[in-house]
Amino acid sequence: MSDSTKQHVTVIGLGRMGSALADAFLTAGHPTTVHNRTPEKAAPLIARGARSAASVAEAVAASELVVVCVLDDAAVRELLAPAADALRGRVLVNLTSGSPEQAREQAAWAAAHGIGYLDGGVMTTPPGIGDSANMILYAGSPELLAAHRETLAVLGDPVDLGTDAGLASLYDAGLLGLMWSVFGGWLHATALTGADGVPAKEFTEVAVRWLRTVAWFMSGYAGQIDAGAYPGDDATIDVQVAAIGHLLHAGEARGVDDRLPRLHLELMREAVAAGHGGDSYARIIEAFRTK
Amino acid sequence: MSDSTKQHVTVIGLGRMGSALADAFLTAGHPTTVHNRTPEKAAPLIARGARSAASVAEAVAASELVVVCVLDDAAVRELLAPAADALRGRVLVNLTSGSPEQAREQAAWAAAHGIGYLDGGVMTTPPGIGDSANMILYAGSPELLAAHRETLAVLGDPVDLGTDAGLASLYDAGLLGLMWSVFGGWLHATALTGADGVPAKEFTEVAVRWLRTVAWFMSGYAGQIDAGAYPGDDATIDVQVAAIGHLLHAGEARGVDDRLPRLHLELMREAVAAGHGGDSYARIIEAFRTK
Repeated sequence: MSDSTKQHVTVIGLGRMGSALADAFLTAGHPTTVHNRTPEKAAPLIARGARSAASVAEAVAASELVVVCVLDDAAVRELLAPAADALRGRVLVNLTSGSPEQAREQAAWAAAHGIGYLDGGVMTTPPGIGDSANMILYAGSPELLAAHRETLAVLGDPVDLGTDAGLASLYDAGLLGLMWSVFGGWLHATALTGADGVPAKEFTEVAVRWLRTVAWFMSGYAGQIDAGAYPGDDATIDVQVAAIGHLLHAGEARGVDDRLPRLHLELMREAVAAGHGGDSYARIIEAFRTK
Repeated sequence: MSDSTKQHVTVIGLGRMGSALADAFLTAGHPTTVHNRTPEKAAPLIARGARSAASVAEAVAASELVVVCVLDDAAVRELLAPAADALRGRVLVNLTSGSPEQAREQAAWAAAHGIGYLDGGVMTTPPGIGDSANMILYAGSPELLAAHRETLAVLGDPVDLGTDAGLASLYDAGLLGLMWSVFGGWLHATALTGADGVPAKEFTEVAVRWLRTVAWFMSGYAGQIDAGAYPGDDATIDVQVAAIGHLLHAGEARGVDDRLPRLHLELMREAVAAGHGGDSYARIIEAFRTK
């Protein structure tokens, strides 16, 4: 599978995600060197043509582009600290989950050692790696991303978040929060409609389509947030307070847990109490900005 | 604009939504009769070619298809009770917001009076009427919907929910709940990224794209819900409990309100406590099914 015209890559960390990353590079024909603390995990990748390196320094020496995806930030530090010299002049792509603050510290450490640094957020699960429909967020160096975009695109569609290395982790956290909220609202509604005999698949087809309409509202509201003005031209918070009564009533009649809609009503009521009932829902962002 | 080859339609109730519905019919060339309790609201539609009827009975007599969109179920009953004889043999399309139980009662009343009945849920705001990207849900009679689909498609894309007249209202409530959850998660994340200087429009572009990935997960999880089995093949609840720590930590560091992620963590912990930490997130539906 290996193609000598393709860039050499190194993948450090062969958990489920790291193995999926290495696998995608191999599938695309990149000569791929792998390393894992416990070397047994490399076996399936070696069978597919990967070269296994016995040490981090040896793994790093094999490629200009070094992808690391391990358990957490502490594991990244422990693994890479002894390999700082070997990494000098190379590009470190850190796809390990962590906080924005940790990412910024890694970027500063890399800069101090003459190492190129990209911090990434993988916005899919291991089976989704290699599918360009999925995003991989990169932050820290638009120049390095541009230089290695073709290789990194093998993993998923690269999205450039600019020069602040903390932003991939921050977006990642925010987007996962959005995901849990979507899942919560959808599961609540699926329980509600399911109580009247609607199969989850039937309701979900409509719900997925509805998300496109909701996304259309979000795009409009984003402009309001940036402008700091929330005109309730199409639908006000007052109208939503009235509408959520139907949801609470329907849930109560069906014995569906109401914690999630009650929290939304609480947020809406705070905006109404502050005199913003005539504004659009985008005004609710102030409930989250407590500072 | 009126086209004699097009079906005559009547719209009762000229609030913002009713006026938008009548306007869409006029734009499509349907001879349109309108009625509102306070007749002044008909003026802009009359200027566009609508005929104004002085009474509900006269409005109903003008068309086979009668659309009613008023404040609430009580207003529907009050308006239509005296017009039951005039409605006999016609098709009543009730786009008024209400509960599934109210819709089923309206359907029974219509059946008892020989009136065809469709209950609808308008899944957009008035400015979105007439755009086929938006859904209008119909329940109660797939046959009547099929017979009038071409005319109703003028308002938005008709989605057939089958014979149970209560389902348009039930879907409507559930989908609005999903919307508030999406808005909540998105606004929380926008506040979070905004704290580090990310404009709402920039974050929202990525968030909207992320919704497509989330929708892909939902479609898979819907099959798990219908099967009653929740294999955590790609991502377990245990993994999400670990990941939400990053979100809570990032929010705390930025002074962002944590009620929404705390509720999601609470739901996840209940599933873990019940021994389901190794299952997929779809298992969380059991937190909502309290019966």
